[in-house]
Amino acid sequence: MILMRSITDEKFEKLLKFLQEEKIDALLITDNEDSKNINLQYLTGHPMDGMAIILESGESALIPWDVPLALKEAQVDEIINPVNYKYNWNEAIKEYLTTHIKKSTIKLAVTNNFPYATVVRMEETISNIKFYREIPKITRFIEGMRATKSMREIELLRKAARIATETVQDIRHFLSNATEETEKDLDFYVQKQMAQKGAEDLAFPTLVGNSNRAHMLHCHPWASNEKLALPGLGLIDFGVKYKGYNSDVTVPFSFGGLNETQQKMHELTFKAYQAAVDMLEIGVPLWKVHKTAEDILKDGGYEMPYALGHGLGLTVHDAPFLSRKPQNEYSLKFWKEITLENGMVFTIEPGAYQKGMGGHRLENDIAIVNGKVEVLTKSEFIQV
Amino acid sequence: MILMRSITDEKFEKLLKFLQEEKIDALLITDNEDSKNINLQYLTGHPMDGMAIILESGESALIPWDVPLALKEAQVDEIINPVNYKYNWNEAIKEYLTTHIKKSTIKLAVTNNFPYATVVRMEETISNIKFYREIPKITRFIEGMRATKSMREIELLRKAARIATETVQDIRHFLSNATEETEKDLDFYVQKQMAQKGAEDLAFPTLVGNSNRAHMLHCHPWASNEKLALPGLGLIDFGVKYKGYNSDVTVPFSFGGLNETQQKMHELTFKAYQAAVDMLEIGVPLWKVHKTAEDILKDGGYEMPYALGHGLGLTVHDAPFLSRKPQNEYSLKFWKEITLENGMVFTIEPGAYQKGMGGHRLENDIAIVNGKVEVLTKSEFIQV
Repeated sequence: MILMRSITDEKFEKLLKFLQEEKIDALLITDNEDSKNINLQYLTGHPMDGMAIILESGESALIPWDVPLALKEAQVDEIINPVNYKYNWNEAIKEYLTTHIKKSTIKLAVTNNFPYATVVRMEETISNIKFYREIPKITRFIEGMRATKSMREIELLRKAARIATETVQDIRHFLSNATEETEKDLDFYVQKQMAQKGAEDLAFPTLVGNSNRAHMLHCHPWASNEKLALPGLGLIDFGVKYKGYNSDVTVPFSFGGLNETQQKMHELTFKAYQAAVDMLEIGVPLWKVHKTAEDILKDGGYEMPYALGHGLGLTVHDAPFLSRKPQNEYSLKFWKEITLENGMVFTIEPGAYQKGMGGHRLENDIAIVNGKVEVLTKSEFIQV
Repeated sequence: MILMRSITDEKFEKLLKFLQEEKIDALLITDNEDSKNINLQYLTGHPMDGMAIILESGESALIPWDVPLALKEAQVDEIINPVNYKYNWNEAIKEYLTTHIKKSTIKLAVTNNFPYATVVRMEETISNIKFYREIPKITRFIEGMRATKSMREIELLRKAARIATETVQDIRHFLSNATEETEKDLDFYVQKQMAQKGAEDLAFPTLVGNSNRAHMLHCHPWASNEKLALPGLGLIDFGVKYKGYNSDVTVPFSFGGLNETQQKMHELTFKAYQAAVDMLEIGVPLWKVHKTAEDILKDGGYEMPYALGHGLGLTVHDAPFLSRKPQNEYSLKFWKEITLENGMVFTIEPGAYQKGMGGHRLENDIAIVNGKVEVLTKSEFIQV
């Protein structure tokens, strides 16, 4: 599988322009097991573990842990083998920077998560570097680029979504036959179905909650040995990774009929979902979409303690976020209204939760393609 | 489940002494989805997502994302609810630091992975802070403390190991009956067996390689749809998480008889394993244990492109590491010989790999308890 970098040439030019405007000589991106940064894959194609250097001229280099993998996947001008520096990465970076940038002071930029320890080590061994300090600005700029997808990316997201949709029907089959099975059993079954359909991995650890547990936000099935088929509202929240791109779906279900409260939870959720989808059009501020759904639930007496939706791409929490306007002045100062744009791909996932009644959430993935709303997945309420 | 902090009172005193000697007023630890730091759990008991502040006086505070979870799990003097600061964490930290430390300059320390972006934001909003720059020193100090386990920790590691050992017999059963099953099928089967035995999660994503793929270091079964039961040497590398503590075992297997090369790979691996275990005694330098195993494999014509073993605890890659002496001068300057100590828990996992023949690795978990070697798991070569 050749991943190649996901960023388009047009966006790469925009990135270089940003670096030039901010007088940044080079952008550094690190990704490793304890400090993940998907921008490495987005900007170079190399899936993980390494450091990328992108000069404002557009020249780029990668120091990877796995050199053979980089030779296959990375779309950079130079792959630097850390073995040649006896795994002293700092020496490799120093040589690259001083060979390529002939300036008395080299200005470097990093994004969120870049470790302070690496900054200190570099400052101590490369005397003429200076770090750009407006990290939220450059981080948001790159996340903003990632928020709108190319047609190639949308094709991969469609495929990840298709596998999830097919799995919804498997879930219907499982639920219809469930007697003594546990939440874990559904987890394993769904994993296996997704694997057989070509998923390369789970997008995230599946959540399964019977009506006892579905009101909790993080109902990890491994934390429980409970039987699935209890009367009331349950849910399964799962997703597929396909060539690096993710889908994310929640299927609400019930065993037995609904009482009045449960019926209300169901109706409010679906009403909030539909109202949100109906107002999607280019230019609508995303916080308003969140507010519309939240207000419907609130008027019905339910709190939604999370954002209505989040972007999907190389991560399951890409920009854009369909969330509340910030409440504090400090965050408002940095906040910028994001409106719906062509190429955005995100979830819509309202829900109502009440201990004793269960949890109810409908979640689908949505893409904006050629100005039109395309619902990529097809979740539904499964009543047994 | 009450986790409580893992660090013992005695070690906590040692940490405070370190802070005092280095003239550090407070240690900050952050953990979040993209930037993991298990020291949060080790030092406070809170399993994830938050920031801990430990003053050199021993007073401690936690700003968690999940306040109810912190109220249940965290062993700190104060839990600070970020809602009270409208999620402006910087404001919360500033207030805590300036209330508790009455000095003109406050010296803060962080460990590896602490984001540079957070350092910059704090420097810009809290005027009188200064960051300690010897990050490798404090990081290694805390990792060093974590390298020797308390009896409570060893008890949890024994339990995680026991579940893995029981699963080895399930694997024997699966392999004996394997015909058309894929590598993925074994992955799912093993997950399910571990879940049924009380595992709270996988320690890490299971690796399964048939003889076509087992020579590769990272044979993720989802990357393949291959049949398991091919003649030659295959392996499964899996582990269990139990109350936060991890086990890690590799079971080598074969279908059909071994040819001369495969027989040699098997014998070298088991000889290297036994030689390494036999030399374990308090005071032995760990690089020598690595070298003994590596030399046996090398003399037989095989390279071992990784470290012979790694510590186990709240992570699957704790200190100590049984690895080669560094080859470059820069790393040697920072390197310190680590010798075997009471309370260390780690893997021993030599192996021989050859494309066309397969991959062969034996891995068990070992604890040093009251000066004696206790082999916690019981992996074995399964021939079908």
